Amino acid sequence: MQLPVRSRLLLLLLLRASGLRAGERSSSAMEEIATEKEAEESHRQDSVSLLTFILLLTLTILTIWLFKHRRVRFLHETGLAMIYGLIVGVILRYGSPSSSGHDKPFSCSQEDRPFTTLLVNVSGKFFEYTLKGEISPGKIHNVEQNDMLRKVTFDPEVFFNILLPPIIFHAGYSLKKRHFFRNLGSILAYAFLGTAVSCFIIGNLMYGVVKLMKLVGQLSDKFYYTDCLLFGAVISATDPVTVLAIFNELHADVDLYALLFGESVLNDAVAIVLSSSIVAYQPTGENTHAFDAAAFFKSVGVFLGIFSGSFMMGAVTGVVTALISFLFTKLHCFPLLETALFFLMSWSTFLLAEACGFTGVVAVLFCGITQAHYTYNNLSVESRSRTKQLFEVLHFLAENFIFSYMGLALFTFQKHIFSPIFIIGAFIAIFLGRAAHIYPLSFFLNLGRRHKISWNFQHMMMFSGLRGAMAFALAIRDTATYSHQMMFSTTLLIVFFTVWIIGGGTTPMLSWLNIRVGDHAPSVEEINESRWLYFRVGVDPDQDPPPSNDSFQVLQGDGPDSERGNRTKQESAWLFRLWYSFDHNYLKPILTHSGPPLTTTLPSCCGLLARCLTTPQVYDNQEQLREEDSDFILNDGDLTLTYGDTTITANGSSGSRTATTSLDGRKTKSSSEEALEHDLGMGDNEVTSRGTRLVFPLEDNA
Amino acid sequence: MQLPVRSRLLLLLLLRASGLRAGERSSSAMEEIATEKEAEESHRQDSVSLLTFILLLTLTILTIWLFKHRRVRFLHETGLAMIYGLIVGVILRYGSPSSSGHDKPFSCSQEDRPFTTLLVNVSGKFFEYTLKGEISPGKIHNVEQNDMLRKVTFDPEVFFNILLPPIIFHAGYSLKKRHFFRNLGSILAYAFLGTAVSCFIIGNLMYGVVKLMKLVGQLSDKFYYTDCLLFGAVISATDPVTVLAIFNELHADVDLYALLFGESVLNDAVAIVLSSSIVAYQPTGENTHAFDAAAFFKSVGVFLGIFSGSFMMGAVTGVVTALISFLFTKLHCFPLLETALFFLMSWSTFLLAEACGFTGVVAVLFCGITQAHYTYNNLSVESRSRTKQLFEVLHFLAENFIFSYMGLALFTFQKHIFSPIFIIGAFIAIFLGRAAHIYPLSFFLNLGRRHKISWNFQHMMMFSGLRGAMAFALAIRDTATYSHQMMFSTTLLIVFFTVWIIGGGTTPMLSWLNIRVGDHAPSVEEINESRWLYFRVGVDPDQDPPPSNDSFQVLQGDGPDSERGNRTKQESAWLFRLWYSFDHNYLKPILTHSGPPLTTTLPSCCGLLARCLTTPQVYDNQEQLREEDSDFILNDGDLTLTYGDTTITANGSSGSRTATTSLDGRKTKSSSEEALEHDLGMGDNEVTSRGTRLVFPLEDNA
Repeated sequence: MQLPVRSRLLLLLLLRASGLRAGERSSSAMEEIATEKEAEESHRQDSVSLLTFILLLTLTILTIWLFKHRRVRFLHETGLAMIYGLIVGVILRYGSPSSSGHDKPFSCSQEDRPFTTLLVNVSGKFFEYTLKGEISPGKIHNVEQNDMLRKVTFDPEVFFNILLPPIIFHAGYSLKKRHFFRNLGSILAYAFLGTAVSCFIIGNLMYGVVKLMKLVGQLSDKFYYTDCLLFGAVISATDPVTVLAIFNELHADVDLYALLFGESVLNDAVAIVLSSSIVAYQPTGENTHAFDAAAFFKSVGVFLGIFSGSFMMGAVTGVVTALISFLFTKLHCFPLLETALFFLMSWSTFLLAEACGFTGVVAVLFCGITQAHYTYNNLSVESRSRTKQLFEVLHFLAENFIFSYMGLALFTFQKHIFSPIFIIGAFIAIFLGRAAHIYPLSFFLNLGRRHKISWNFQHMMMFSGLRGAMAFALAIRDTATYSHQMMFSTTLLIVFFTVWIIGGGTTPMLSWLNIRVGDHAPSVEEINESRWLYFRVGVDPDQDPPPSNDSFQVLQGDGPDSERGNRTKQESAWLFRLWYSFDHNYLKPILTHSGPPLTTTLPSCCGLLARCLTTPQVYDNQEQLREEDSDFILNDGDLTLTYGDTTITANGSSGSRTATTSLDGRKTKSSSEEALEHDLGMGDNEVTSRGTRLVFPLEDNA
Repeated sequence: MQLPVRSRLLLLLLLRASGLRAGERSSSAMEEIATEKEAEESHRQDSVSLLTFILLLTLTILTIWLFKHRRVRFLHETGLAMIYGLIVGVILRYGSPSSSGHDKPFSCSQEDRPFTTLLVNVSGKFFEYTLKGEISPGKIHNVEQNDMLRKVTFDPEVFFNILLPPIIFHAGYSLKKRHFFRNLGSILAYAFLGTAVSCFIIGNLMYGVVKLMKLVGQLSDKFYYTDCLLFGAVISATDPVTVLAIFNELHADVDLYALLFGESVLNDAVAIVLSSSIVAYQPTGENTHAFDAAAFFKSVGVFLGIFSGSFMMGAVTGVVTALISFLFTKLHCFPLLETALFFLMSWSTFLLAEACGFTGVVAVLFCGITQAHYTYNNLSVESRSRTKQLFEVLHFLAENFIFSYMGLALFTFQKHIFSPIFIIGAFIAIFLGRAAHIYPLSFFLNLGRRHKISWNFQHMMMFSGLRGAMAFALAIRDTATYSHQMMFSTTLLIVFFTVWIIGGGTTPMLSWLNIRVGDHAPSVEEINESRWLYFRVGVDPDQDPPPSNDSFQVLQGDGPDSERGNRTKQESAWLFRLWYSFDHNYLKPILTHSGPPLTTTLPSCCGLLARCLTTPQVYDNQEQLREEDSDFILNDGDLTLTYGDTTITANGSSGSRTATTSLDGRKTKSSSEEALEHDLGMGDNEVTSRGTRLVFPLEDNA
């Protein structure tokens, strides 16, 4: 059961309007002034509450800095944001006096169903009112209880429409990692099958718990099977941001990193769409909560429809942006225009998807991936760093905001229902749900994988099942009914527990499981230097430390993993290979200035078409740019470049690249096979030998 | 007269909620589904309308690029955005069918005055409604006329609370120009006195026009003297963004640039506060629109209070940010944290000012100036570019959004009142108002200025009185009454006219007035190169081309202006000199890592205090950083640096700076006098001789 009118506004009221209460009644002019004053007072309170959040974030940032500076790893910034949020929540809850001077709400009986817009005639003047939502009769007085608590309560749709998109886009935009594509098959399996399995298992377990509660008499309102499944979908979205931050810092195993990161990014999308389709499950007939085959298949159809629609939407906008940046190459001279265009096109994906009835957040994810894969190659050096920095800041602010809001919500949200049985059941269920998808799936995946996912990796993946921003946003989206309120409170506790306990336990767990960790953690000077490097040439050494680290690891041959350097193309699935060669031979040449010219890849019958689609500069740049055709932002060639020369030219250092290539005396062929081998690590040895010679200064600074 | 409840929400409904109409009434379940569908439909329409704006902006960006690429100067990007807005407005207005299927609004009589929150009992369920505003009875049906037109109509407060702050902050943050401080006295005079004079003259002239209209019988409702004054305040904010863009491109005279830019930035602030205080003018007693001395002085008090309060608020937050960045120097290692902190602190200024009842936009302006003056010096090289780029993008998007909305509003705003007499009167009034403040003020200023403002400059300033975003935002803020609607329509036309005609006429006007223009416009390659330079060392050559250009002009001695090189410290007023030495000797050392150590500037009795406040690195860096103490982002030393060495170190290239200084054989003293001389251009000759030797490559590329 849902709110009859779930006002799904796009960009909406960050802070709920309220606060005006009827005071004494006097003459018209005086009254106007009084109302003005009250409106101003309300505006002031809004400002104060937003200010609270900003000061919270400021405090968080300063403490994060302290932690980073001192290398504290037991508490991540998101955990910290939650703690500060909790503290402020306690202060607001128990510190601020509950305003008692509110008048009784004006009641006005209407016939059948609510209008969205009301016109109210007040002594001859007409006032317009808009519908906010339904309020359960018992809560009427509760709602007005504490002004300040209401002020800091955001409209749930804010999370979905304002805060999640930058987080998700950033995740997609930084997915451009070589190891992600290496493990694509496994990642897709974990994300799709895994999330579905987890959702189903958690849903069923929770239904058992609910039955138990009913038996014990702990359940005071309805709790349907669909609610349990919805809880399963909500809580299945993992968010191992804490774990990944530590992985990144410790230079932990890159494949594990890719598996975890890829899974968490994609299962967010799966969880959203899953929960939408569970909500869409509405059997017809009398018993609206029994199983209905038609409704079930409709739900499955909704899932497939929304997912593929959002995927298409995102991919198409990404491709359009890539085409624009491909055609308007002279935009390079105006990075501001380029960046603005990139930002607008990415945002329009969200709106387009929402306008078509798909899920904007999912579309934004795939748009981010497409942008990173194609558009990024067409951008000027400055725009690359600008776009990344812009989305990095937005992502950082949004994420920390959500986590501090979570802390706050534990005390300021006024409809919490904490049920011990439900909470304990939920913890057990998410544990079992994660176990039930990680271990069996890994077993099946290992049948097909040449490089097996080891037991230690599986344990680590099992351990890293944190819940974060997405679970919270899904849970808070609808807290109208008893069951949803209980789900929300439980989700909040699960997020707290996992972020604090698992986040803090990552480093011990890594060493306990003997998972390979880089030789050294970077010193402050090194970080400083790498930042500077990034700034100088637009190459971000932080972006993808695992791969470069990997090459060294391979060379050093530390134990059982050293055969990874010999990994060959046979390892990747035929489907991926098919896609790769299509992408490399046709899409990249059409959409970016990299890749082989179409004239060499298209069959000869399409010669004319190929010539039309190939810009002259592709021929010119072919030799130079082929190696730059990167599935990873920091490829070894870039590092070489950074140190290899002192004169860096504006257009991407093609000169030095050529020099390096000729140095190796390797003739560049334009077959996609070779490029694939190179991208997938076949070229690791050769690249590494180059790397160690030239990259040496970076690694030697420790 | 105003809306009884002007809902001044902070971050509010970008798109008005509406769209739900009561359809057929059926059973409860079906009804819920139907309502859900309608809500989704409404959400979809919101997305479509936002999408419209994004596509508009995208189109604008692509056309801007084309124009910039082809060096089209007769139409600026803002003018272009308006044209696209107009086109889309026409399509929406005449293309979309006016939805007729709306039901009659539900009326519900209430006693005395409106509540903000209504609870409506609909067949047992309670629904919450919030107040939107008053609607004049005649408009009740008009309002619901066209759904799409309503959708693209934004809440006026969006402009004030979301779109203006980034624009104004960016203006303040880029005010850090040497020529601005040189002309500070004149700029303040134009901004404060000029705006007040202009407001008063326009107000009185318009009152005459209104009297005339009443005589002719063209006035159908009340139009008070205060309304006329408000119009004067609204329309007095100049926004010569078009002119300045062309100045920048043509390397036009730097002093004129500084005068125009400084005036327009500060008079925005003055205009906001002026209009607030005119609104606050509410005489007591029977005749509420007669002159009342008490109310008048109250208004003056409000003006002074709000202005100084906002100023203090902005300055204090800026100083606090500077202190944080000064104390937490290790933040340099984490530019993301630094940038986020900077962003949050700047935003908190806005909220703090609003929370205290001051004007957020004005506070944000002064915060930007303070940040540029102090905090900027403490930031890491990467954060400097990050913050600038971030605010540049926000400013760009917000500005173009406002201008395209203006174009749209001409057709989609449904309460236009175009009165030919009023419009013609307004055009004459703004012309006379600008003339009446530019010429007399320049005359008086010239009495005190050593370097006079020539007649040609005065004519150019007169000509550059464009109206833009600020006038629009002030005018749309309140369109409840007849007089305000007429003012809004007229303001819109004035903005269109001035941006198109004056923007297009700038280049001819410059040559007609014989105003010195740089030797050459930069070629695309040059722009490209300078961008690249910027990216490499964090020095933005675009930021302040006039000064560097100026030095060359001076050396070339082209005509009557060549004596400007001899400009000495006597030229600046004593008040400014006092402030400068205080700032240089005390504030800069306390707040930044530049300037002389406090131990040398404080009297010996405060020795202990001085030692406490001075960080060790100030002693170390003193020699190197003294020249970096920049009132201008691009000083000549930076240019030297750019070409002077190939090894660029991370922390601001202090090494090469020292080398240059010793090259000149000039002993660095720590007196503020010398620093002032240097900053104010006394050092021009010496700097230029250095400049020509080393900066040569940049200028020779043409």
